[in-house]
Amino acid sequence: MSGNSFGKLFTVTTFGESHGPAIGCVIDGCPPGLALTEADIQPELDRRKPGTSRHVTQRQEPDAVQILSGVYEGFTTGTPIALLIRNEDQRSKDYGNIVESFRPGHADYTYWHKYGVRDPRGGGRSSARLTAPVVGAAAIAKKWLKEQYGTEFAGCMRQLGDIAVPFQDFAHVSANPFFAATADAALIAQMETYMDELRKAGDSIGARIDVVARNVPVGLGQPIYDKLDADIAYAMMGINAVKGVEIGAGFASVAQRGSEHGDELTPQGFVGNHAGGVLGGISTGQDITVSIAIKPTSSIRTPRRSIDKAGNPVTVETFGRHDPCVGIRATPIAEAMLALVLMDHALMHRAQCGDVRVATPDIAGKH
Amino acid sequence: MSGNSFGKLFTVTTFGESHGPAIGCVIDGCPPGLALTEADIQPELDRRKPGTSRHVTQRQEPDAVQILSGVYEGFTTGTPIALLIRNEDQRSKDYGNIVESFRPGHADYTYWHKYGVRDPRGGGRSSARLTAPVVGAAAIAKKWLKEQYGTEFAGCMRQLGDIAVPFQDFAHVSANPFFAATADAALIAQMETYMDELRKAGDSIGARIDVVARNVPVGLGQPIYDKLDADIAYAMMGINAVKGVEIGAGFASVAQRGSEHGDELTPQGFVGNHAGGVLGGISTGQDITVSIAIKPTSSIRTPRRSIDKAGNPVTVETFGRHDPCVGIRATPIAEAMLALVLMDHALMHRAQCGDVRVATPDIAGKH
Amino acid sequence: MSGNSFGKLFTVTTFGESHGPAIGCVIDGCPPGLALTEADIQPELDRRKPGTSRHVTQRQEPDAVQILSGVYEGFTTGTPIALLIRNEDQRSKDYGNIVESFRPGHADYTYWHKYGVRDPRGGGRSSARLTAPVVGAAAIAKKWLKEQYGTEFAGCMRQLGDIAVPFQDFAHVSANPFFAATADAALIAQMETYMDELRKAGDSIGARIDVVARNVPVGLGQPIYDKLDADIAYAMMGINAVKGVEIGAGFASVAQRGSEHGDELTPQGFVGNHAGGVLGGISTGQDITVSIAIKPTSSIRTPRRSIDKAGNPVTVETFGRHDPCVGIRATPIAEAMLALVLMDHALMHRAQCGDVRVATPDIAGKH
Amino acid sequence: MSGNSFGKLFTVTTFGESHGPAIGCVIDGCPPGLALTEADIQPELDRRKPGTSRHVTQRQEPDAVQILSGVYEGFTTGTPIALLIRNEDQRSKDYGNIVESFRPGHADYTYWHKYGVRDPRGGGRSSARLTAPVVGAAAIAKKWLKEQYGTEFAGCMRQLGDIAVPFQDFAHVSANPFFAATADAALIAQMETYMDELRKAGDSIGARIDVVARNVPVGLGQPIYDKLDADIAYAMMGINAVKGVEIGAGFASVAQRGSEHGDELTPQGFVGNHAGGVLGGISTGQDITVSIAIKPTSSIRTPRRSIDKAGNPVTVETFGRHDPCVGIRATPIAEAMLALVLMDHALMHRAQCGDVRVATPDIAGKH
Repeated sequence: MSGNSFGKLFTVTTFGESHGPAIGCVIDGCPPGLALTEADIQPELDRRKPGTSRHVTQRQEPDAVQILSGVYEGFTTGTPIALLIRNEDQRSKDYGNIVESFRPGHADYTYWHKYGVRDPRGGGRSSARLTAPVVGAAAIAKKWLKEQYGTEFAGCMRQLGDIAVPFQDFAHVSANPFFAATADAALIAQMETYMDELRKAGDSIGARIDVVARNVPVGLGQPIYDKLDADIAYAMMGINAVKGVEIGAGFASVAQRGSEHGDELTPQGFVGNHAGGVLGGISTGQDITVSIAIKPTSSIRTPRRSIDKAGNPVTVETFGRHDPCVGIRATPIAEAMLALVLMDHALMHRAQCGDVRVATPDIAGKH
Repeated sequence: MSGNSFGKLFTVTTFGESHGPAIGCVIDGCPPGLALTEADIQPELDRRKPGTSRHVTQRQEPDAVQILSGVYEGFTTGTPIALLIRNEDQRSKDYGNIVESFRPGHADYTYWHKYGVRDPRGGGRSSARLTAPVVGAAAIAKKWLKEQYGTEFAGCMRQLGDIAVPFQDFAHVSANPFFAATADAALIAQMETYMDELRKAGDSIGARIDVVARNVPVGLGQPIYDKLDADIAYAMMGINAVKGVEIGAGFASVAQRGSEHGDELTPQGFVGNHAGGVLGGISTGQDITVSIAIKPTSSIRTPRRSIDKAGNPVTVETFGRHDPCVGIRATPIAEAMLALVLMDHALMHRAQCGDVRVATPDIAGKH
Repeated sequence: MSGNSFGKLFTVTTFGESHGPAIGCVIDGCPPGLALTEADIQPELDRRKPGTSRHVTQRQEPDAVQILSGVYEGFTTGTPIALLIRNEDQRSKDYGNIVESFRPGHADYTYWHKYGVRDPRGGGRSSARLTAPVVGAAAIAKKWLKEQYGTEFAGCMRQLGDIAVPFQDFAHVSANPFFAATADAALIAQMETYMDELRKAGDSIGARIDVVARNVPVGLGQPIYDKLDADIAYAMMGINAVKGVEIGAGFASVAQRGSEHGDELTPQGFVGNHAGGVLGGISTGQDITVSIAIKPTSSIRTPRRSIDKAGNPVTVETFGRHDPCVGIRATPIAEAMLALVLMDHALMHRAQCGDVRVATPDIAGKH
Repeated sequence: MSGNSFGKLFTVTTFGESHGPAIGCVIDGCPPGLALTEADIQPELDRRKPGTSRHVTQRQEPDAVQILSGVYEGFTTGTPIALLIRNEDQRSKDYGNIVESFRPGHADYTYWHKYGVRDPRGGGRSSARLTAPVVGAAAIAKKWLKEQYGTEFAGCMRQLGDIAVPFQDFAHVSANPFFAATADAALIAQMETYMDELRKAGDSIGARIDVVARNVPVGLGQPIYDKLDADIAYAMMGINAVKGVEIGAGFASVAQRGSEHGDELTPQGFVGNHAGGVLGGISTGQDITVSIAIKPTSSIRTPRRSIDKAGNPVTVETFGRHDPCVGIRATPIAEAMLALVLMDHALMHRAQCGDVRVATPDIAGKH
């Protein structure tokens, strides 16, 4: 209840700090009988891991995952699955200069005031490194959802600072360092130049990411507070640096009329998906579409005004290894959070209404 | 756990349907010793209730609240507070024509597929009428937070369809039917004409609402999943018809540089509030600023294509008494949800870190 | 989370005080599609209600239950079911003399120190009257479990003070005022005399109650902390005045050898049931057998030493209408708690492992 | 929610199997600022670990604990504390003969029917080895409670099969292999002989354990369902092999009169403690006294009738390394569970009622 567990029935409890000996999580509630090895999890961690291009942090972490429990002879047993990831490339001295003062835009200030103590090494618990365990846990959720319902997840960058990134096809996402769903080589080159200049300037930039779930069973979600879209908003806003979340038409809904926004139905399915796959907090069986805004990294080399713990004015420049755009690596993280939400709601639905017999009725999913 | 409770330590469990005998809630976890009568709650319900202008639903409901438990001789006792609100103006026949078919954009379709049964009278459980009990519960939270920390809440409409509504002062909000924070009579008149035309056209429109909390203690929020902003996003996206949530700079963060977005600190306080009062998931002591997008009402008189339960094509026109812009009455609801989130986190913080001794340190809150 | 909700997936949240306007509960998580009216609930409340013999409190309460929500056209809809029971026979003056002092053995002292405020009328929230709403909620659980698995519940008194009450048949329970499973008229007469003398003496007495669940599906329970027997112990010890709980052989296990205690299995089923239907925290499909110890009522006419709020010595005699043996009415309450535990675990099991296909395998249930 | 977490605010989530690579737990909700190293935890693990006398299992496990997170420069930071304990002495072949059949009295049968898969090595998740992580977690709770309120825990064996073990002084507990609170050398010798004979006979025996908490703050506990005694019953019944729980007078209450059972109060404190330190579910400030019944170990060498997975009759003899009386090592485990319950309720109380200012009022604690 102190905020380090995600999910009610497929519950992921994470632990660890950026520069401690290890990070990891315990997954409680995974159904028994799922075939599972580290090889099912590692690819998702590899998509998220640092050091894969010059545009992200140069910290070198293999992020090799070890399953400590909950799997016997290759199948889940229904008992907790513990995942362990060793931290290999800690360089605590990089952070020596920010122990006594607060980086603008960073959690330094609030952790200090909340707890009266904080681990300053690499941001401690507030580091985006702590998204690794949930990406690992979500790999398990993805596998189960895929086997049960055929549910699949995809995501891509749609905006990098001022640069809009048109959507072509998710197939392109793995072919460039930005998770851009485009084959436009000129655009990719423009993005690379943009990032190179930012890095030289010692500054950082925001991004917008879209994620989608396909082949979602109809009926997932609880109607009043644990609405599917409410839980998605919670999951997404909980990702480091996220400042905004949209479902379906999102903020564009403000200027829409009801006759335009409300997706009509025909015997062949829904006509349009302004709803983003959720009506009244419950999945329609259409694609679930989510868009998130990610703020620029707070740790930058540009000198900034701040104060120290005693309240004296100081100038802060943050060296060390930081992502100049945390949005770049956010795509697999956002997919992971969406998968965890759907997994939890799939189990919750099963508790209240029994097994889902039809993943998507004939009239849904066509749009 | 089936989605009808909000909050972990100040837990509000609601019940009721739009056209049942009553709606209400049970509030578990209210600290003892708070002076409380119905007169503390009723004004907030009156701000939200229907029938207060021609621009909202004409259903006539006094929304008179009765405290059934948890208060003895004018003070809370620490035991559950039950609030009861009788439904007085049910007209179930208004809904007869939509029992067998699904209104586009409405929860009819998803409730039917989830539960295999639904109460179609006035939308049943999915009606925005169910926001009344939480507004009542939040009145208690608001009173406690005000007494403990001086925390206050305010909100206003910022956009009505195509019409932007500039912010002047929250003092104006109660002087017009739109919760607009402006004294611009011409703008109000324009909004009234806009709504009159929509109503004649049998259509509806979206809106954008801003809410803010002031004098928030520093240190509220849990760092990884139950981040303060994540819980705010959950609370806001859970309000009927909300499709997007922003904290602080929100989607504008995407195009910002780190040197612009990160709010600097000086001995006199933060310089700017792009963060919206939350860093690393924990309150900074600055104002918490939230913006939400509300979709247009789904129940409109305009004929629309849909299907019936058997999958046959039908045309749906929804008569009855509906808000042509659900965003109009959303301001007190959004304030209520924000208050509930802060209340819950205030208790959570007290559990883990003991009593908050300083609501806002000297260096915070000046911006 | 403040202790007024029972169950994780079939969650019952109660409210009310002994002498407030009403008591009741909200049941969240009831599966949709269950046929339900007040007539399904009232008989269970009638078994528990006061005033049915001279051996229990003479407070006259019809305990008439009203369903406020969650049921449409006679079937549950999957939304919260609110139950309301009006208090009709409050006589607050009865309690005037104990407002300022603490009754020995009663919650007066602890409530006062915990909350700094308490409702002294009839014990306020600590009254056994608050077991009525859970008995109502459990009637719904019983109906669902019966329909799904054929599960049935029964209970009886096994000891009244010094008088042991042999078990003959549950059929006799409703034929005497003590819930004794015996047709021994002489024993019943002895119990009546015993109670009459106690009442004249202004004293009270303890009791032991057994409850059993039959036709329980195999596989209910979580293995480490939410063991089925752990949750049963929690449920039973939470009943007013309970001081001890046994499952199966209970305290007799202490002197047993493993070769005696461990129930052997044959192709025809288990040989014996020392386990009480639970192994490793999970149901075996055998009868679940529970025994509880209930202390004597604390509110007695016999003068007792105590202190007032200021710490001064006082003599306390408690007049008013009290059960001279709270154990007499405890049988339906204990059955109710057992039913709520099994209901919750049935839904939990369904979440993690899917629908239970076989309630009791062939080899179980024979013992 | 799948039963592998204990506590709501001081939440301990365990993982691991008897013969997997490691066991451990994540503790979420520990207040910041507590001085903590492995040296604070290891002594409690050493009290519980196997192989310390010939009367317990001969499995050799150092049970060396490693803190993976949540501590910085010797103090807790308020973030999750992960504890890791490597399994060193697995001998899976010991269990080869019970893979296909069910040991009477053991969780084999129920795990198989619940999950359709189970890890048979050493009982997998159902092994009492899984009590090690909670003993580790409880060492942290004990330290915090001691520093905050002076609360202390002690426990001892009171009965070993037929042998009653009188209580003299907790100081003797560490001086014999049975956790007996006696200096009676003849009695200890008798117990040793008793155990030696049992071991030769290939059989096992039950035990009764008492635990007590002293210097408990008044006011801990929630009044209806999360009563302090209900949570204690839940915690105790959740320990492997426990079949009965008593608080205070326990089952002796059945034959007591109210004038005998109800503990009188004087300005000098309570007169007696039949309540066991809990009234109305809330701590009185007196000692909390608990007694538990532990069944004999199910894994014995004596041949027993059982069935295999196909339902065919088999004879089961369990070799390998087992405790002939699991009750012997249960004392530190029962203390640990009691400490975890009090820790959780201390934080819960702080959430709802603010910091406890007086651990025990003058009138309490004297008995």
